[in-house]
Amino acid sequence: MATRAAAATLTAATSSLLGRSPSLRSHSLRVPRQVPPQRFVRHVASSANEEAAARAAAATADTGGPTIFDKIVSKEIPSSVVYEDDKVLAFRDINPQAPVHVLVIPKVRDGLTGLSKAEPRHAEILGQLLYAAKVVAEKEGLANGYRVVINDGAEGCQSVYHLHLHVLGGRQLKWPPG
Amino acid sequence: MATRAAAATLTAATSSLLGRSPSLRSHSLRVPRQVPPQRFVRHVASSANEEAAARAAAATADTGGPTIFDKIVSKEIPSSVVYEDDKVLAFRDINPQAPVHVLVIPKVRDGLTGLSKAEPRHAEILGQLLYAAKVVAEKEGLANGYRVVINDGAEGCQSVYHLHLHVLGGRQLKWPPG
Repeated sequence: MATRAAAATLTAATSSLLGRSPSLRSHSLRVPRQVPPQRFVRHVASSANEEAAARAAAATADTGGPTIFDKIVSKEIPSSVVYEDDKVLAFRDINPQAPVHVLVIPKVRDGLTGLSKAEPRHAEILGQLLYAAKVVAEKEGLANGYRVVINDGAEGCQSVYHLHLHVLGGRQLKWPPG
Repeated sequence: MATRAAAATLTAATSSLLGRSPSLRSHSLRVPRQVPPQRFVRHVASSANEEAAARAAAATADTGGPTIFDKIVSKEIPSSVVYEDDKVLAFRDINPQAPVHVLVIPKVRDGLTGLSKAEPRHAEILGQLLYAAKVVAEKEGLANGYRVVINDGAEGCQSVYHLHLHVLGGRQLKWPPG
C-alpha cells in the first residue's frame, strides 16, 4: 500500500518536473511584455497541465511517501546544484519558468510535506530555507530583483510533497503571482 | 533629503496599495478558469501598473525611510488584522489578488527593506514570518491550498520596502507564478 502510494507520488512528481515539451520550456524563458493571443492560449494550456499534476499529487500528499527530491538529495538522480550546506540543498528546476529558477529544499523532510504541515519546532529550518533563498539569488546575480514562491496543496499548485521554495528571476515578474 | 525620499516611498506604496479602482479590485476576486480576451487585456493593464509602482518604489528603496507599513504597525493607518504576536503582524492586502490575500510583516524592520538585505542574524525572524504565514492560512481556512510569495526589488514587483510575505488562497492559483 505504502509502496503503491509512493509510486503514485513519484509518477506525479516526475510528470510535473520532467514532462514538459522543449517548445513550452523555451516559451517560459522568453515572456514578452505584449503577449499575443496565440501565446496566451499556450500559457493557459501550460497552467492547466501544472494544475492537473498538482491535483494528482495531492491525492497521495499525506502518505509521507518518498518523492523525487529524496533521490535528488541522495544524488541518485543528478541535479544542477546551486547551493548546499548541511541542512539545505538548492538546485535548478528542470522546467524553469524564468531564466533563473532554483528550488530550495530541506535535506531532511522531517514531516514537512508542505508548509501547511509546519509546527513551531520547524521555525528554525524555515528561517534557514528562506535565508538560503536569499543566498541563492545573490549567487545567481539577481541584483534587479526576484520572487520567492511556496506552493501548498492543490489550489497552491504544489506538485511535489517535500517542502520547497521556488526562487525565480532574470526577467520582470508579473502581478498577480499566478 | 531623507524626508523627501520617505515621502516618495510612501507615495509609491500608497499608489500601489490604495490606488486600484473598485472594478479592478472586484475582478481580482473572481478569476474564471477560462479567461475571455477582454479580461486578459485588463489583467495585463493591472500587471503593468504594479510593475510601474515597483519601479518607482525601487528608486528610493535603499534609503531605509519609513513606509506605509510603519503606520499600519503603529495603528496610525487602520488595517484588517488577521494575526498578531510580539514580532509579527498579519493584515489583509487592500488590493487583494485572491479571495484571501494577507500580508505578513515583521513589526520591527531591522534593516529588512527586502529579503535581499537579510543577514544570518535575520534567520530567526524569517522563520517566524514563514511559520506565521502557515498559521494565517490555517486561520483563513485554506485547507485546499495556498501560495506564499515574497517579492524582492523592481523585477520581483516589490512596491513597499519593508519585508512582507503575501499569503494568497481561496481560488486555484496558476502557473507560472507571475
